[in-house]
Amino acid sequence: MAHIDLGVDETRFPGITGPMRFRPETAKPLNELAEVLLRAPHSLPAGERELIAAYVSGLNDCDFCCTSHSAFAAAQLDQGLTLVGQVRADLDTAPIPEKLKALLRIAGAVQRSGRAVTPELVEAARALGATDVEIHDTVLIAAAFCMFNRYVDGLGTFAPEGPGGYYADSARRIVEHGYTESV
Amino acid sequence: MAHIDLGVDETRFPGITGPMRFRPETAKPLNELAEVLLRAPHSLPAGERELIAAYVSGLNDCDFCCTSHSAFAAAQLDQGLTLVGQVRADLDTAPIPEKLKALLRIAGAVQRSGRAVTPELVEAARALGATDVEIHDTVLIAAAFCMFNRYVDGLGTFAPEGPGGYYADSARRIVEHGYTESV
Repeated sequence: MAHIDLGVDETRFPGITGPMRFRPETAKPLNELAEVLLRAPHSLPAGERELIAAYVSGLNDCDFCCTSHSAFAAAQLDQGLTLVGQVRADLDTAPIPEKLKALLRIAGAVQRSGRAVTPELVEAARALGATDVEIHDTVLIAAAFCMFNRYVDGLGTFAPEGPGGYYADSARRIVEHGYTESV
Repeated sequence: MAHIDLGVDETRFPGITGPMRFRPETAKPLNELAEVLLRAPHSLPAGERELIAAYVSGLNDCDFCCTSHSAFAAAQLDQGLTLVGQVRADLDTAPIPEKLKALLRIAGAVQRSGRAVTPELVEAARALGATDVEIHDTVLIAAAFCMFNRYVDGLGTFAPEGPGGYYADSARRIVEHGYTESV
């Protein structure tokens, strides 16, 4: 049970979906932010942006967000959940492009503190071809998940068992309809 | 100088205002979120909500956000910057209502981790009269500033000297026009 009465059956509306039904005024900009950062046309594929979200959510120990965005990343990456697991287990040896590794290292720094992002981390990403928009959006995706993770866990919401079931259904909904139409 | 080329004179557009000009697509939902959380009609006065934002920004060592939201809180609270300083220096002895202290303790927990919010912290706020919406919004304000702070510092933006000057001008603009019309 969440810390407040969300007015929903939490097994049907787990994680962030309960607070979003409780307070639609804040759900609107939150979903619009997720849509722009994770799904709008971009030089970084949606699967890679979802991977950044899953990676940061894992560092923040947020089960609901990490299992959700791992499923959303997996649904949009060729190697699926196996690759997400490899990145979360050991970024250095994961079979992903070096540019994406450099962006994930920036995201990992943001998770600790904005002040942990060094010029060296940014230069390393740039040297591997990362653009200013890609660096900007990596910082903001990581920062946004430091918000979403705290929102979900700070209200003590319910997280179903994963990785399939609810999360697989949710991935199909997000990939097909996006964040602003699938609440 | 910020980590990326924001395309603005950073002394004129310091802190979050540079990244918001660089990426208006993400600025829009970010400003809408701030407007709903900090300025929309609410049982918690705007000054108290800005105080939560300033308090969390201080805990995150984000100079630009802390000085900004301290100025915005001060402009809307009778005892101004003195009170903001007392709350930031020692919450337990600060001359504010006990309910607001209990909400600030929840915000402080959210700053550390969503998982740090305990049923006891929530019950303490509720026993002092906090409503479910007030508890929800306190959690989300604190979570949102864990995002804003990381966004501002993760991009290495410039922060002017405070507390007056830029921040006092900014406070007049926010109090008069709000977040969505004063970017």
